[in-house]
Amino acid sequence: MAVLEAKIVVSASSDDDVFEKGKFKVKTITVRTSNASKPPVELFIVAPQEKGTYPVLLFCHGFMLGNNWYSYLLRHIASHGYIVVAPKFYGYIPISMTAEVRRAAQVTDWLPTGLLLVLPEKVNPDIDNLALAGHSRGGKTAFALALGRTEQKSRKKKARSIRDVVDVTQPSKFKAVIGVDPVAGSSPSDRPQPHILEYIPRCFNMSIPVAVIGTGYGNQPLGLLRPPSAPNGVNHSEFFNESKPPACYFLAKDYGHCDMLDEWYANMMSFISKSGTGPRDLMRKSVGGIVVAALKSYLGGSDDDLNAIVHDPTTAPATLDPVIYVKE
Amino acid sequence: MAVLEAKIVVSASSDDDVFEKGKFKVKTITVRTSNASKPPVELFIVAPQEKGTYPVLLFCHGFMLGNNWYSYLLRHIASHGYIVVAPKFYGYIPISMTAEVRRAAQVTDWLPTGLLLVLPEKVNPDIDNLALAGHSRGGKTAFALALGRTEQKSRKKKARSIRDVVDVTQPSKFKAVIGVDPVAGSSPSDRPQPHILEYIPRCFNMSIPVAVIGTGYGNQPLGLLRPPSAPNGVNHSEFFNESKPPACYFLAKDYGHCDMLDEWYANMMSFISKSGTGPRDLMRKSVGGIVVAALKSYLGGSDDDLNAIVHDPTTAPATLDPVIYVKE
Repeated sequence: MAVLEAKIVVSASSDDDVFEKGKFKVKTITVRTSNASKPPVELFIVAPQEKGTYPVLLFCHGFMLGNNWYSYLLRHIASHGYIVVAPKFYGYIPISMTAEVRRAAQVTDWLPTGLLLVLPEKVNPDIDNLALAGHSRGGKTAFALALGRTEQKSRKKKARSIRDVVDVTQPSKFKAVIGVDPVAGSSPSDRPQPHILEYIPRCFNMSIPVAVIGTGYGNQPLGLLRPPSAPNGVNHSEFFNESKPPACYFLAKDYGHCDMLDEWYANMMSFISKSGTGPRDLMRKSVGGIVVAALKSYLGGSDDDLNAIVHDPTTAPATLDPVIYVKE
Repeated sequence: MAVLEAKIVVSASSDDDVFEKGKFKVKTITVRTSNASKPPVELFIVAPQEKGTYPVLLFCHGFMLGNNWYSYLLRHIASHGYIVVAPKFYGYIPISMTAEVRRAAQVTDWLPTGLLLVLPEKVNPDIDNLALAGHSRGGKTAFALALGRTEQKSRKKKARSIRDVVDVTQPSKFKAVIGVDPVAGSSPSDRPQPHILEYIPRCFNMSIPVAVIGTGYGNQPLGLLRPPSAPNGVNHSEFFNESKPPACYFLAKDYGHCDMLDEWYANMMSFISKSGTGPRDLMRKSVGGIVVAALKSYLGGSDDDLNAIVHDPTTAPATLDPVIYVKE
């Protein structure tokens, strides 16, 4: 009955403009590890306030970026009828990529029992409709998790607050994976474990649909001292190349690697990572709209919005060029 | 009338097994620059002996490899009714990539007037049916030429034996381009001019069909001292990713970067570049068969052989995995 309710919600929103805020008022919730639901890491959650059952999106933040630095983007997505869960993988001291993927797997395992406990009353997660997304290194984390690459390295240290032994998360737990300017390392020859890229077209060993959003400035250095944030050979292009159909691709050619962050953080990051020149709200709306359109298509709602963007990319606020959708 | 003859020849060979030698006896011809036809560089040509008009394939050799080190492969191709022209871009001292592309363009310009003069009597080139192929760095040369990237750098030195001023070769001169384990440099950040890779899917600005053959061992080092011949990020995978449809892709997963050379040279190169363990004649037949199937499809013959390989890659003597054909 609850799932049926969710389906009504999704189809009811099919007339919305995905590039504008959706019809649902949303609520942001920060869940600390001390919470009774015992989340494995701190979570930033954005959910509709209206009663209903909504699909869930697990969103992985980028390297050294906060999980709540994407609040505009995540609110945009949630306003179209999705519950977005953004884990905080670490504080000021980053962890290894392998540990990050394990933490994301732990959050995935927590969702079926824990998420309901922290949501507003009568707002239910449709855990069977679970999608993954991530930005920058978090994009790789999302793909690694979708691929079930949560392998455990042998360790001498005893497990501490975060469990070191994690069940291998089966790819089938997720219905879709979305990379927002995903990055797999600093070059093809310098990539942290797990090595998910193999440099073979369509080699990703998973059957769920994929969406990849790239940025045109991500592969450019910022002056002489700052290397590119999303270097050639380890960025959006290769993630798309290695994805099996159905897979769609969008290049926000006039924007930079961090231009979908909230304005204050995007400004701060513009001293580290090359930023675009256009108004960033157009970028946030574009990324939000693409994510919503992909979720609506891949989670069993309507294909209409995704097909509309593919057929006429000028409907997006930012210039998207190229746009590719390989259906089979 | 001559062109009609060629069409008859092509369609007559459609029942052949592309992975075995074709029905035409072939002749090899070495044309030196002193020849009356005045080729811009020395050429190794393989052509059918039987009278007729045949499509032409310009084949670009790999870095520091001889243009006649592929004689088995080129004879295989020619035996199916093609005239193969393999320029020798340099002797013992390599030239720049830019100069190599210019020389390839010069050979292209020479073909309409010069080729007929050096072929056996009553063997005619169908210059309107001209395709490009190349191995390793020569694969990049082929793509650069197809893309019209024959730009001339400003030079202080006076033009010498090779003309430095070359008409920009229009992409439309060619009907197809085939990369045999093409390589664009040593890494995405270390690529010689012209920079044809842009790390954007389907960005190659040309409308002709593409075939890319990769090798499974090309991205592996040989011991500690020899880096990979076809490194990740600059190899077959990215060339395919940047090609617009129609484009087909084949990975000879059990073979190395130089395993399609003649046996003696392949043996020699196995001390420099990681070789596969299987019999190399299977690799040569597989590459030859794919090239023939692609030419038959792309030059207006029959699609049957290419479709047959795509639908059942086990028809090839070597293991091809994956095989991808994006038609549109």
